[in-house]
Amino acid sequence: MSNRTRTRNPNELVERARQGDRGALARLISFVEEGGDLARQVGRLTFPLAGNAYTVGITGPTGSGKSTLTERLISAVRASGEEVGVLAVDPSSPFSGGAFLGDRVRMQSHATDEGVFIRSMATRGHLGGLSLATPEAIRVLDAAGVPWVLVETVGVGQVEIEIASSADTTVVVVPPGSGDAMQASKAGLLEAADVFVVNKADRPGAAETRRDLEFMLHLSASDAEWTPPIVMTVASNGDGIDDLWKAINDHRAFLSEHGLLEKRRAQRLAEELRHVVTQRVEQRAYERCQGPDFDRLLHEVVERRLDPYSAAGRLLES
Amino acid sequence: MSNRTRTRNPNELVERARQGDRGALARLISFVEEGGDLARQVGRLTFPLAGNAYTVGITGPTGSGKSTLTERLISAVRASGEEVGVLAVDPSSPFSGGAFLGDRVRMQSHATDEGVFIRSMATRGHLGGLSLATPEAIRVLDAAGVPWVLVETVGVGQVEIEIASSADTTVVVVPPGSGDAMQASKAGLLEAADVFVVNKADRPGAAETRRDLEFMLHLSASDAEWTPPIVMTVASNGDGIDDLWKAINDHRAFLSEHGLLEKRRAQRLAEELRHVVTQRVEQRAYERCQGPDFDRLLHEVVERRLDPYSAAGRLLES
Repeated sequence: MSNRTRTRNPNELVERARQGDRGALARLISFVEEGGDLARQVGRLTFPLAGNAYTVGITGPTGSGKSTLTERLISAVRASGEEVGVLAVDPSSPFSGGAFLGDRVRMQSHATDEGVFIRSMATRGHLGGLSLATPEAIRVLDAAGVPWVLVETVGVGQVEIEIASSADTTVVVVPPGSGDAMQASKAGLLEAADVFVVNKADRPGAAETRRDLEFMLHLSASDAEWTPPIVMTVASNGDGIDDLWKAINDHRAFLSEHGLLEKRRAQRLAEELRHVVTQRVEQRAYERCQGPDFDRLLHEVVERRLDPYSAAGRLLES
Repeated sequence: MSNRTRTRNPNELVERARQGDRGALARLISFVEEGGDLARQVGRLTFPLAGNAYTVGITGPTGSGKSTLTERLISAVRASGEEVGVLAVDPSSPFSGGAFLGDRVRMQSHATDEGVFIRSMATRGHLGGLSLATPEAIRVLDAAGVPWVLVETVGVGQVEIEIASSADTTVVVVPPGSGDAMQASKAGLLEAADVFVVNKADRPGAAETRRDLEFMLHLSASDAEWTPPIVMTVASNGDGIDDLWKAINDHRAFLSEHGLLEKRRAQRLAEELRHVVTQRVEQRAYERCQGPDFDRLLHEVVERRLDPYSAAGRLLES
């Protein structure tokens, strides 16, 4: 490996990433994952350069075929002539650094395409976890000039849904089968979806799942002008991918026309700022609850010379 | 109502509670529930006076017959000649102030007994919720000279288990029936239990549930010298209550003999102190994320003149 790619200087790496150096891009995302001072520097450098990429979140239960669908979407973006970055986010895994997780290997069909950058992200050092690291990683791609960023989350836990639903367009993938639509509803996916996909639509139960989704959407119908379309796909052979790509672009156009894109992005930044503040004070609380000052005050509490609230007050004053 | 009982002066109320004034006791617990300055004053006054009461937590899934069992335990404590305080804790309910929740009405069989003080607690103003308010309420009873405090929690959510397992002796009640023991295990009750009760032991499946518990205890057996006994009871007719009362006293004796009571109480105070510190910094974070300073910095973030981390830094410096 040459010195050129081994630099750890964030300024230099951001400059190189903007010139198309994929190694620099990968390193910057690693810094973000690891958190700490380098991540902060990367954030300060990329934030003013970002704000142009359009993000698509893809989430849904295991077995819905999200990965294959994401692979097809990559092809759709590329067919439109644009570059695409893909973040495969797995909060349950400590592994990261490449597209090597399970069926993500299949994404390697795009591995030789210079217009595609695929990266798995996992929980590493970042104190705020992946819900704070992911928007930062998106900004790295964004700052490097990548116009489309797909964010695929592995599970449907709270963190995964939070990450996927903070995209500009959130695609919720549901497999066919009785009860699956209801499960998606329970997990809070109904509220998160801008576009629904019933994938594996050639399997039994697909029409019923579509009907269930329609029914639930009808129940939860609000005054909002956008009603999530339900797209039927068979990711394994590419059926319906054009419809999905159109639905995503329709939603994008809708947001732009109604001035909602900037509004939603501003709301997300407000949430992110609150999240960062909370994470930092929690870190501070954690630090205050370690070391000799804490031990001394705890001793006084155990000896009943000081109540826990007064002890907490003294810890936070110091 | 006389002026005597209507005072809101914590000093006066603590003094009266120590002289056996049940109205004063009830008012002090209400202050604790509501949180705020009065709660802090009550905490400062009662903390140095507390540390003598022995606490028994009683938890288990709905339908296990916890309330009837608690009622029987009250009788057992009274038969031993000692006074008893009972806190029925329901984090899911906004109601409090008396034993009027559902089958808690049955506890009214002790209502005319001056040696029994029963009180329901619910989530009210206290910022730390019931997991912080409950130890404070226990200290009110403790400071008033009540030697036994039973803490019954209504559900088996995380907060309920946390509350019940912070007692000196934690009793986990399981109803008979296939899978119930396994469910208790999943909810984390297995680790929390010092004593197991299979209640409604006259019903089918009780012996199997006992066997399941024995098997799971065997699987999780550690080097700890205390193995939770499994007591079979029929709370509705009083069968097995003597065994349960003996098991509780055996556990108490075990803790005392091995010097574990003071050790566990010190650990709990350390956890409480950490919890109070965390709650206070979270409150601070919440306050920082409101108002003109936050709005001004957020505006700079949305305009991309400032990244979220730098904005958070400024908010926390100010």
